Amino acid sequence: MNMKIDILLDAIEKKDAPVCVGLDPMLSYIPSHIVRQSVAENGEGLKAGAYAIWEYNKRLIDALCDIIPAVKPQVAMYEQFGYYGMEVFEKTVRYCHEKGLVVIGDVKRGDIGSTSEAYARAHLGSVKIGNSFYSPFDEDFATVNPYLGDDGIEPFTKVCKETGKGIFILVKTSNPSGSQFQDLNTEGKKLYERVADMVNKTGKDLMSVKYPYSSVGAVVGATYPEVGGALRKIMPNALLLVPGYGAQGASAKDLREYFNRDGLGAVVNSSRGIICAWKKEDDVEYAADNFAECARKAASAMISDINSAR
Amino acid sequence: MNMKIDILLDAIEKKDAPVCVGLDPMLSYIPSHIVRQSVAENGEGLKAGAYAIWEYNKRLIDALCDIIPAVKPQVAMYEQFGYYGMEVFEKTVRYCHEKGLVVIGDVKRGDIGSTSEAYARAHLGSVKIGNSFYSPFDEDFATVNPYLGDDGIEPFTKVCKETGKGIFILVKTSNPSGSQFQDLNTEGKKLYERVADMVNKTGKDLMSVKYPYSSVGAVVGATYPEVGGALRKIMPNALLLVPGYGAQGASAKDLREYFNRDGLGAVVNSSRGIICAWKKEDDVEYAADNFAECARKAASAMISDINSAR
Repeated sequence: MNMKIDILLDAIEKKDAPVCVGLDPMLSYIPSHIVRQSVAENGEGLKAGAYAIWEYNKRLIDALCDIIPAVKPQVAMYEQFGYYGMEVFEKTVRYCHEKGLVVIGDVKRGDIGSTSEAYARAHLGSVKIGNSFYSPFDEDFATVNPYLGDDGIEPFTKVCKETGKGIFILVKTSNPSGSQFQDLNTEGKKLYERVADMVNKTGKDLMSVKYPYSSVGAVVGATYPEVGGALRKIMPNALLLVPGYGAQGASAKDLREYFNRDGLGAVVNSSRGIICAWKKEDDVEYAADNFAECARKAASAMISDINSAR
Repeated sequence: MNMKIDILLDAIEKKDAPVCVGLDPMLSYIPSHIVRQSVAENGEGLKAGAYAIWEYNKRLIDALCDIIPAVKPQVAMYEQFGYYGMEVFEKTVRYCHEKGLVVIGDVKRGDIGSTSEAYARAHLGSVKIGNSFYSPFDEDFATVNPYLGDDGIEPFTKVCKETGKGIFILVKTSNPSGSQFQDLNTEGKKLYERVADMVNKTGKDLMSVKYPYSSVGAVVGATYPEVGGALRKIMPNALLLVPGYGAQGASAKDLREYFNRDGLGAVVNSSRGIICAWKKEDDVEYAADNFAECARKAASAMISDINSAR
């Protein structure tokens, strides 16, 4: 069985790019001619919104797939268009796979055991209907929320063992109030350190044989660099998924401590900074027609920038 | 604007039933003749699974709608059938509304601000496409995860202010490892007490004018009764959404402290205990044909049991 952590790290090495692009399309990011065309084809409504995203995503994926190893679609941006949005989420995952991209589903799911099992099947596994198994959304990795403790995580790792897939547990998020609970001192340790211990413990059984990394990684925001450095040391075998670069304010120099000495260990995400790059061009009208090339240019610049930090 | 908290509490008073039923259908809960028929109509695949649930739900809702005030569909059970499952989730919410039921979407979403905004729109609000607004899933309440702090919650309360809808923040969950992080001592307070403080603070601006309750409630599991009693006192104006009764092990006597002196303040949920009641009958073959009546009988018994505790 191929482990997705190996496929992801191979792709990072081959493309020399420890990054992923957040496919988090708000309707306001999408050039208006694409939205108008989708409304003309699908009628005004949620389907038109969802299919505008689909058109936008396809062109972004085509323009980016040979220079980046992975994408991280944020499911909320699809869910906001109802089930049509979820159809486009599924189509996006499949299209990324066709183009050789690793897909990290940013779903932040987490619930009691039996419910987490359903989420794990939905995003990383399969369900049995009649005599066959079907994989609903079929991402390679998913992000999960730790608030419910071990038994909310176990169903995900169980599915990872069966499928070779992986998870990233939210340890320290990039948002301003990420500190509110996560940084609390809890009987001698910060809460995020306890969640980091969970990552280590859970990840032991899911180690790659090729790389010193586990299929259980951690989300660690780029916006708290000292914490990132400390967490890097606490979780030596965890791949860090690092949001917060670019639009959220962090720069490459903040990221030096997120990498291990092997130059691996972190996958830095940018969403708006890449998929919305066209809006920052001087000639916005020209850029709207060439949004995918603008995204490619921004991704290339990001890769050079991040590589300067490792 | 009608506040959904008033509609929910009115319905609890009128039906004398502080309960909700978890519409959390696993395929294994559904009598096999319904699954077979769905496969015959839809072909083997995710659509057949989703539509088996839809058929099952409709009959449960028909049998329950005059005796219960609310349902709590667990979205994971729908998500596991991909976008067809999400279509059935939406259909279920709309059908419940037609039948006069309040719908609590058990979605446990939560993310950084801009992403939580998309989730809030998806489940409680609307999105603008062209010149009109569309409400994707349109529940009345949604459960949310607090791990990302205030700025992950604010987009939900903002939508609640616009729509009259509400949320339940996860404070203390019912699962065995719910204690792992939630019970940690954090600088003089348990973590769940700090989340309870967040519920109080966030709920102040969203008070009902008719009842002493806020549109911001709290999820407090039935399986830790001492904690439930303590949290009841810390959050006097929060409606408690209480999972864990029945199949998860808690009984009515455990729930006395979850209610306020007005006999209100808690909505106790049961899922498997109601929707799977038919499987506990002696004549399982007969019960499979009459699963909805079995659910009604179980719900009536649950209501009497819970009422003995308040």
